[in-house]
Amino acid sequence: MGDEYFTSYSDLDVHRLMLTDEPRMKSYKNAIDSNKDIFQNKVVMDVGSGTGVLAIMCAQAGAKKVYAVEASDIAKLSEKLVKENNVSDIVQVFNTRVEDLDLPDNQKVDIIVSEWMGFYLLHEGMLDSVLVARDKFLKLGGRMFPEIAALYASPCSLPDLYKFWTDVSGINLSVFGNELRKSKSNQPDVALVNAEDLLSEPVCVFELNLRTLQTEELNKFSCSRVVCANKDGLYQGLCIWFTCTFPSPIITDQLVLSTAPFSQPTHWKQTVIVLPDEYAVEEREPLAWEINLTRSDENPRHYNIQLTMLDPEKVAHAVPCNCYMTKCIVSRTFLECEGEPGDIIDMT
Amino acid sequence: MGDEYFTSYSDLDVHRLMLTDEPRMKSYKNAIDSNKDIFQNKVVMDVGSGTGVLAIMCAQAGAKKVYAVEASDIAKLSEKLVKENNVSDIVQVFNTRVEDLDLPDNQKVDIIVSEWMGFYLLHEGMLDSVLVARDKFLKLGGRMFPEIAALYASPCSLPDLYKFWTDVSGINLSVFGNELRKSKSNQPDVALVNAEDLLSEPVCVFELNLRTLQTEELNKFSCSRVVCANKDGLYQGLCIWFTCTFPSPIITDQLVLSTAPFSQPTHWKQTVIVLPDEYAVEEREPLAWEINLTRSDENPRHYNIQLTMLDPEKVAHAVPCNCYMTKCIVSRTFLECEGEPGDIIDMT
Repeated sequence: MGDEYFTSYSDLDVHRLMLTDEPRMKSYKNAIDSNKDIFQNKVVMDVGSGTGVLAIMCAQAGAKKVYAVEASDIAKLSEKLVKENNVSDIVQVFNTRVEDLDLPDNQKVDIIVSEWMGFYLLHEGMLDSVLVARDKFLKLGGRMFPEIAALYASPCSLPDLYKFWTDVSGINLSVFGNELRKSKSNQPDVALVNAEDLLSEPVCVFELNLRTLQTEELNKFSCSRVVCANKDGLYQGLCIWFTCTFPSPIITDQLVLSTAPFSQPTHWKQTVIVLPDEYAVEEREPLAWEINLTRSDENPRHYNIQLTMLDPEKVAHAVPCNCYMTKCIVSRTFLECEGEPGDIIDMT
Repeated sequence: MGDEYFTSYSDLDVHRLMLTDEPRMKSYKNAIDSNKDIFQNKVVMDVGSGTGVLAIMCAQAGAKKVYAVEASDIAKLSEKLVKENNVSDIVQVFNTRVEDLDLPDNQKVDIIVSEWMGFYLLHEGMLDSVLVARDKFLKLGGRMFPEIAALYASPCSLPDLYKFWTDVSGINLSVFGNELRKSKSNQPDVALVNAEDLLSEPVCVFELNLRTLQTEELNKFSCSRVVCANKDGLYQGLCIWFTCTFPSPIITDQLVLSTAPFSQPTHWKQTVIVLPDEYAVEEREPLAWEINLTRSDENPRHYNIQLTMLDPEKVAHAVPCNCYMTKCIVSRTFLECEGEPGDIIDMT
């Protein structure tokens, strides 16, 4: 093989990590294969195509033409992968930023596929580029794969950052644990959280519909939530993760890539915002917070994440809310009296 | 807590990795605790003490005095850990390179403990510093923890670098696999190898006795070996790993830290030298090679590793050797005739 290009070893190892991420690969494969009717004879664009695996999947699913757009050197390797999979006549690789791309005759595409997600969905993300591609190249009524992206959160215990350090082979390393947690106050920890260490049902922080999302909406996310602790435990951090949902041919059948603690682990793991101190919480205690994700001025591909604890007395709770506060007990009792089991209660 | 020092976040994460390495922690703990008789009232030096956990273990095992010598900033954190574990009167931390250390009254120590091992034992290793400490500070007849270090090797299959890439969610990524393997020809891969992917019994590449080892001996290791394949398989790399053996109070009871593929995984994993091409081997086929580890001129903490395949016809085989070559079948037959079952055969 001629060495007409060079992909750095570290780049190869990053792609290796992504290509061996089974939930990631399988969810895209499943989403594309389940939608062969949508892909049949269509023109597709893969934004940030990397090694080109999604482009190849689309070709295998019946696409007429796939434009694989990749800015980095891995594009050259992806051309060989396209050949190896006998889809050279369908997949065309463009080694360019999608922002700099023009298609002949101002051609439009029917579908945009992209795996643009970073840690906590947005970090190092290329969602901006995907939106540029959508606005420039997607036909009216065209489809996005994925179509919906959502961020979830739940308060959690962090035994790996707390309890573990109290006894490591008979030695008390709490001071080390303190330092470690202090180091995580400037930068969230990317780590696997055990599902049993979540202290509440997850709540959705935000949901993005990629068909309608505008770039400006990505500059700042702000949301306050109250959750109800579903067990006694130590509140040591806020665990956040994302899901991506693909168009589904059957309305009842959700095609989702989930990076939740209760899903098969992915290379994204979860992201943990470590609290400066731990709090003992009891079952049914309301936990309120505000989270702000603001694009960093220094690096627009990064976000500053700010977490503020709120007074559960002063914020609106969900209805119904299972927490032990009087107002929620009252409204719950009221709802139970009003609604027969199985009734759908109109909360508007 | 006053912020009178700063340990970089990445340093903390490196120490976190080592402190959560259970086989590493437990083998040192077990070795020290099993030898309380040796540690009782003794003076100990911990070379490259890091967070100070080994020094604390020695104090807990009855040492009279422990000198913990650490060049990096983590030394300041280790002082807090020493206090937290109530051994401040026993453990004294020196934030210095051991090469620059002088003890009052030219004091000597009874025992040197150290966790100096790097990938493939020698990489980034601080064995040189341990030997400096030994020659300067260890009493005649003093003990080393660990005492013996050995490197092992076995030919192996590498499905993660070969077979995996032929079908990744229905896509043939062999070209990516090729690139990945090519990238590993300049730098060995640090990865976990499955025990069942080893193609022979392990052979010892070298064994170091830390009581007698001289620094010059670390400049170059050269060894040729023949092993006999114990199954049919694809010979795709040479897997190397190390063990460390601690002094044992009971001669039959080996205290060993093993990083072998058939032992509990450690943060060292295994090191794999990837062959430029794969070879199909059959059971009982002799596989001969020469391995050279030479200290790098640019960085004396790194080694250049060179692996050369040899002709099994032209090198001496072990006696007895289980391979299918005529000379080995003949000598095996001879040995079986000569020795009664249970006899010890003098091979000299």
